[in-house]
Amino acid sequence: MARTVDFYFDFISPYAYVGWNRIHTVAKKNDCRLHAIPVLFAALLSAHGTKGPAEVPAKRVYVFKDAYRKAHQAGLPPLVPPPSHPFNPLFALRACTAVADEAERTTLVSAIYRAVWGGGGGADTEDKVLRIATDAGLDGARIVEHARTPETKDALRRSTDEAIAKGVFGVPTMIADGELFWGVDALDALDVFLRGEDPLPKDMLAKWAHLPASAQRKGS
Amino acid sequence: MARTVDFYFDFISPYAYVGWNRIHTVAKKNDCRLHAIPVLFAALLSAHGTKGPAEVPAKRVYVFKDAYRKAHQAGLPPLVPPPSHPFNPLFALRACTAVADEAERTTLVSAIYRAVWGGGGGADTEDKVLRIATDAGLDGARIVEHARTPETKDALRRSTDEAIAKGVFGVPTMIADGELFWGVDALDALDVFLRGEDPLPKDMLAKWAHLPASAQRKGS
Repeated sequence: MARTVDFYFDFISPYAYVGWNRIHTVAKKNDCRLHAIPVLFAALLSAHGTKGPAEVPAKRVYVFKDAYRKAHQAGLPPLVPPPSHPFNPLFALRACTAVADEAERTTLVSAIYRAVWGGGGGADTEDKVLRIATDAGLDGARIVEHARTPETKDALRRSTDEAIAKGVFGVPTMIADGELFWGVDALDALDVFLRGEDPLPKDMLAKWAHLPASAQRKGS
Repeated sequence: MARTVDFYFDFISPYAYVGWNRIHTVAKKNDCRLHAIPVLFAALLSAHGTKGPAEVPAKRVYVFKDAYRKAHQAGLPPLVPPPSHPFNPLFALRACTAVADEAERTTLVSAIYRAVWGGGGGADTEDKVLRIATDAGLDGARIVEHARTPETKDALRRSTDEAIAKGVFGVPTMIADGELFWGVDALDALDVFLRGEDPLPKDMLAKWAHLPASAQRKGS
């Protein structure tokens, strides 16, 4: 049976957009099945007590520039931020959660990502998600209906909680064979790992986990 | 006159270590002079209200693993975390600040980085910094004496404040022609920029800076 690469994403992140457009190639060349898992980035931040790049004024525009360059380097069309950012990605994430079939989910995720970071009108309302899904050839009305159910809301919450429990602290995050890779910059390392050539000495990990701290910031 | 690349660093960061070992090649091939600027990472975090990776339990060991892989990819010897981490890098940063000559400063920065991330005994005390500088062929006693002066303490504080004013929020950060590049992963983009091939459309920047937000996290 083929190995699986879990891809954790939120539409809010331009890095997850670039990652989504690269992960398929990495998974395919290593004979891995891709499993796309929508999670709410804001909940990851709250759980780990961290801030998103858009919440740090000095980082906000830098991240757009950096993601633009990374999209260009990946051969993608020019990255275009959505009409507003940060926006509420909740319904778009629920819509993806509501689609169980992996191929259909991939179609929907790609279509929503194009609407958000590819120059479309964004995906921050139910109406927009309905139109995006329908235009992508999916049963938009059914997807939107499912996205509204308590079961779907619970499923997204559960996926996010499970991701947090696995140590996911940002998006995109890829997990393969229990090993976590964070960020579009880690895709090369994931590729190396999937090829069985990860240079990391596993025997060092316990030592690193228990490295003593000899200083900490005031107030932290 | 050759262009200058400013390299902002703190010894606390394994990414700044990897970046330090790659930046010289990038600067040289683009005919740029390198200017190494020690800054206190903890002060950047406080100024921007953010947390360092070592302060987020889920990130702490991940960052060692990620930096290990990036060091390997850069052809460096196996990355070895120092005896304790986080540690207090203040005296080591002051020592580098105290060395005005760029070539001597480069020698000292490289020697301290080897001691911290290259399997040495760390650089968290005055004694260690004295030995590292002396072993590197520098006048260790003079450097340590200068590092202790109020002038040097002020100079490091000033460098850090100036970096914050320029929007530096992490290490390593490289600034060339006023353009900021953050992280070891941005070195390729810096290289492209220095070659005059930056794909970024400058006319978009004002728009991105004024993009409205339509959602924000509760409590943020």
